[in-house]
Amino acid sequence: MNSKFLLAASLSALLLSSGARADEGMWTFDAFPAAKMKSTYGFAPDQAWLTKVQQSAVRLSVGCSASLVSDTGLILTNWHCASSCVADLSSAERDYGLKGFLAATLTDEKVCPGMEAEVLVSITDKTAQVKAATKGVEASKVAQIRSVAITKLEEEACKDADKDLFRCDMISLFRGGQYKLYKYRIYKDVRLVFSPENVMGFFGGDPDNFNFPRYNLDSAFLRAYENGKPVSTPTHLTWTTETPKDGEVVFVAGNPGSTERLRTTSQLKFERDYRLLTRQLVRSELRGRLIEYRTKNDEAKRSAEETLFGVENSFKAQYGQQRALMDPHFFAIKEKEEANLKAKVRANPKLLATIGDPWAEIDAALTKQQDLFLEHEFLEARAGSISGLYGAARQLVRIANERAKPLAERLPGFSDAAIGQTEKQLLTETPIYKDMEVIGLELWLSKAREYLTADNPSIKRLLGAESPEGLAARAIAGTKLTDKAAREALIKGGKAAIDASTDPLIVLARRAETDARAINVKMNQEVNGPISQAAEKIAKARFAIYGTNVYPDATFTLRLSYGVVKGWNYAGVTVPATTTIGGYFERASGEFPYVAAPSWLAAKSSLDQSTPFNIVSTNDIIGGNSGSPLIDKQGRVVGAVFDGNIHSLGGNYAYDGRLNRTVSVTTASITEALRKIYKADRLVAELKSK
Amino acid sequence: MNSKFLLAASLSALLLSSGARADEGMWTFDAFPAAKMKSTYGFAPDQAWLTKVQQSAVRLSVGCSASLVSDTGLILTNWHCASSCVADLSSAERDYGLKGFLAATLTDEKVCPGMEAEVLVSITDKTAQVKAATKGVEASKVAQIRSVAITKLEEEACKDADKDLFRCDMISLFRGGQYKLYKYRIYKDVRLVFSPENVMGFFGGDPDNFNFPRYNLDSAFLRAYENGKPVSTPTHLTWTTETPKDGEVVFVAGNPGSTERLRTTSQLKFERDYRLLTRQLVRSELRGRLIEYRTKNDEAKRSAEETLFGVENSFKAQYGQQRALMDPHFFAIKEKEEANLKAKVRANPKLLATIGDPWAEIDAALTKQQDLFLEHEFLEARAGSISGLYGAARQLVRIANERAKPLAERLPGFSDAAIGQTEKQLLTETPIYKDMEVIGLELWLSKAREYLTADNPSIKRLLGAESPEGLAARAIAGTKLTDKAAREALIKGGKAAIDASTDPLIVLARRAETDARAINVKMNQEVNGPISQAAEKIAKARFAIYGTNVYPDATFTLRLSYGVVKGWNYAGVTVPATTTIGGYFERASGEFPYVAAPSWLAAKSSLDQSTPFNIVSTNDIIGGNSGSPLIDKQGRVVGAVFDGNIHSLGGNYAYDGRLNRTVSVTTASITEALRKIYKADRLVAELKSK
Repeated sequence: MNSKFLLAASLSALLLSSGARADEGMWTFDAFPAAKMKSTYGFAPDQAWLTKVQQSAVRLSVGCSASLVSDTGLILTNWHCASSCVADLSSAERDYGLKGFLAATLTDEKVCPGMEAEVLVSITDKTAQVKAATKGVEASKVAQIRSVAITKLEEEACKDADKDLFRCDMISLFRGGQYKLYKYRIYKDVRLVFSPENVMGFFGGDPDNFNFPRYNLDSAFLRAYENGKPVSTPTHLTWTTETPKDGEVVFVAGNPGSTERLRTTSQLKFERDYRLLTRQLVRSELRGRLIEYRTKNDEAKRSAEETLFGVENSFKAQYGQQRALMDPHFFAIKEKEEANLKAKVRANPKLLATIGDPWAEIDAALTKQQDLFLEHEFLEARAGSISGLYGAARQLVRIANERAKPLAERLPGFSDAAIGQTEKQLLTETPIYKDMEVIGLELWLSKAREYLTADNPSIKRLLGAESPEGLAARAIAGTKLTDKAAREALIKGGKAAIDASTDPLIVLARRAETDARAINVKMNQEVNGPISQAAEKIAKARFAIYGTNVYPDATFTLRLSYGVVKGWNYAGVTVPATTTIGGYFERASGEFPYVAAPSWLAAKSSLDQSTPFNIVSTNDIIGGNSGSPLIDKQGRVVGAVFDGNIHSLGGNYAYDGRLNRTVSVTTASITEALRKIYKADRLVAELKSK
Repeated sequence: MNSKFLLAASLSALLLSSGARADEGMWTFDAFPAAKMKSTYGFAPDQAWLTKVQQSAVRLSVGCSASLVSDTGLILTNWHCASSCVADLSSAERDYGLKGFLAATLTDEKVCPGMEAEVLVSITDKTAQVKAATKGVEASKVAQIRSVAITKLEEEACKDADKDLFRCDMISLFRGGQYKLYKYRIYKDVRLVFSPENVMGFFGGDPDNFNFPRYNLDSAFLRAYENGKPVSTPTHLTWTTETPKDGEVVFVAGNPGSTERLRTTSQLKFERDYRLLTRQLVRSELRGRLIEYRTKNDEAKRSAEETLFGVENSFKAQYGQQRALMDPHFFAIKEKEEANLKAKVRANPKLLATIGDPWAEIDAALTKQQDLFLEHEFLEARAGSISGLYGAARQLVRIANERAKPLAERLPGFSDAAIGQTEKQLLTETPIYKDMEVIGLELWLSKAREYLTADNPSIKRLLGAESPEGLAARAIAGTKLTDKAAREALIKGGKAAIDASTDPLIVLARRAETDARAINVKMNQEVNGPISQAAEKIAKARFAIYGTNVYPDATFTLRLSYGVVKGWNYAGVTVPATTTIGGYFERASGEFPYVAAPSWLAAKSSLDQSTPFNIVSTNDIIGGNSGSPLIDKQGRVVGAVFDGNIHSLGGNYAYDGRLNRTVSVTTASITEALRKIYKADRLVAELKSK
């Protein structure tokens, strides 16, 4: 956002407190506001600094960020970003979650099933090409036609030899204001090097999640391989055990997943009252089921843990969003911003004539979205809930059907390249827990019936004469999709094999597909298309009024955020910026989730208790930034971002510099732990050698 | 609401459709709008009709309505109003929920533990006395002082010999606009006569709950006893097997629990974004736990069933409220009503000078309520969740503490009479399921920590060094409050016994009490007091502008609603008003919850398939009306109200005559089932004899 816009926004924040939104912004690497930062902090990174950091930043296919920290492909990320890999590699006899994992030698490093790592190599502007494709197209067809155009541009940029080594993604920025082609070097063999015990990675558990003070070793190391060897990565971040002090400048380079800062207030109300509400209600019920299921026995506890962690994390993250949107003061900030922009548009007759009233267009589409929402949610968007097997069945059915169509008639996201990628994922072998599959499938079917009612025609077709409970149990018990060979045969057999299959999950997914696809198409035509066209007009107004010195909403692509190490004050309580290893031992009451790791208790006397453990800073981040390097002025990695405080969750809609904080684990504490507790000499030596 | 107000409101409804809100209103028996009804339907009940119905209407202590239907105390209500009694009387060996219950003779009728029945005998206006007590009192002290004045007036009206036979409740109507003393004849020995199998009482289960078409025999019979003999009730409703046809006038006499129709739009936003949201999220998690817990074994299934039913019922009822408040069109109705009233106040300088701006006063109190909400919710309002044992511990502690204080310093609701009533309830013996107690206590403690954070001082005091899981398991395992004798000893021992108790639940409740009481007092002083004073001013404005021909918000006291038998049309689907017994057999797929009762399948050929089973009408009802008699013009009982459709749930905030429908089970189908399926000849004979 440019200075005018920031000024208006800052004023509203100032009315509430003395803070300002100076550190707001998730900046793309091709548009970092160096001048603005320099004017605030007397320092800004130069191009060499930016290039090095971009080439050291890593995106993980599990939805996390990370960074290269040695010249042989060593990757720093979070314990919670490696935890699905740890769960996949664990069994009842060999529980790496419980004990932690450390590869003594290179050959002990274990492949993380399905995990990929990517490094962004270039950003190319394709706005003109994409906009040309949809020029003059009626609103209901825009989503489909644009999707085809984008697929062609992506395929063109990643063809021939590049196909296997690179990924090309078209990114829509500023809600359709810009389209840029992001090209990534991809590494498909990622191995686990080190991950601490769960009790260290997630000390304080759900109660402390998104809170502070914190004492978590939420860090892990992976390594990128190619052709069975570690990848050579001469460009990487330098490791240091120094920790920046209060007020010192720090950067976060990572992939914030998504934000809604450019949405209209009507869209935010829809978000609050429909999408967030419905998802949180269903998620809470799932959470309750998992909590109770876990008490069955040790195996249930182990098999549910990873999923429960994910569910609880999503719950609290979205609760933070609800909390922001239900706060009248917070919402008033958005309303003022919007009123300000609308007034400026009205004051500019030429602009007004060009864009008309896109806010009213969005409101009209939202009225339709309200009508379509529940059917879209339960028949399409959340079909299958946490059942991975049903998810696979659904993808197999849809891939077979879509591939049989010409590209222009396919659903968005079903280009040959995308299908190929999905097929690869479908052949990944990870543990399958049938009890959990039944819970997921049953939850979906029963909630779909509840929200749409037993008399809804789609529900009648979906359930037939069966109950959600009976159908879920029967389909999971009878499916062969647990076998990779069965999935492979269905992929190879294409539509004929899918149509002929008697596998109960395929039969169910086939039965569901007609209604699911229909509501998808309807939502794109009646809601997404018109909204994206209107949003483009608002983006146009923004550029016209505020110039281009603004940042786009997060898109799970590489961004750079700057800020300073700084605590905060809320409701009369002052929260300091840094905790220490000594504080960890004080908080460890011995009761779950405040149980100290035996390895730490054993090494307690050898540890420097004053070592900074976790640290907060004003950087503007959001979910997806997990694992991002925290970087100092010199470009050294000083920590791994693993959380935001509860106030940071409102950052989905607006950044509030008074309260919004990023939480990182320091490289100082990681090093102390690797040296004295885990005796990870090989790793310590690799980090020291730069 | 008087005609002017209705006109404005009807106009907004008319803008949406051709329906109107003609049948709106939950009228008190001392202010029934006979003239208005007569002008609409050409008929209105006379005073004799009203008196007879009032004397035949019953309120049950389980939060239900009912009616006298014979001259020997026979009471018609719902299966779901008797289901807690059925559960209390059942065991694994003798499961009356599974098999149904029918007392072959009078001596087989079984006492429902703790259940009481009440008949309203008089309504006396005490507005002047109550208002005099708080005249000139500052806002923060109003709630406390009014509570003391009300207690004195109640005690005065129910003293000496009346004390045991009557209950005197001061009812605040029109949000403090009026105070009326309701005097009830109470029957403390209520016995179970008949209740059908759960699969008949709740056919269609949660999926069909609050939906229509329905096919439920949601009915049961109880009997009021005194001195071991059936009570003589010469005044009662006449039984008939005739069912009113489409368009015929019907009445509902019952006790709607509560509505929020007179609240300001700011209050409704608070309701939507804070109270409803938080409760529904926690309730969903509990629901998930109960659903999963139930799968453990048959005993778990049986012990959780009643609670799960209650939780799912509350969930859907409140989801209906959320659904109404998130609908922009619905909310606009309330906004227009409020704007209309505000404009009329502004146009009346004298009135404006008297009341000022009570809406702004409420907004100021709401800002405080937002700050206090979570602590009040988790430390006080919902403490203990579904743990009945913790609830008992809490009441024992509070009663002991409050009784030691002079009345003027006690919390509202702790008069000697109220304490005596609570003590009696504390000595009721009902089954206790320790697993469920642990789930409830753990849920409360863990959600309190989650929403208030582990660093909250009250949470630190509540949990000490323990985890919610550990503390809940330990306290429930160790408590002696399961024994009636232990509870009795603590009641008799008073504060000294409570202070000296080492029972782990008493220790926990004692530890929690200081913070719980403090937030209760704070909420009364800073929020409830100021809001009630402002609400009185709005009530004053309403009376000044619209006259007194309006109805008050529901207060779980006797009301009469009129309407007609009528289906509805929504989203292109027309729903007819009546279902038949034949339709029941068609819907019974055999899969839960659509399993036909074996008794019905066995008798199928003998049944008149065209018998009207369930029926909808436009009567304005809400939760608490369950079990209310549906009454025809002649004053005969033609059905028992057991539900509303999904649209009726928005009735908490506004009545929408286009869609809002009451659902009843017909006396025709009840009689058919009693005669041909249950062979309840004794009961059929009693109903026939008038």
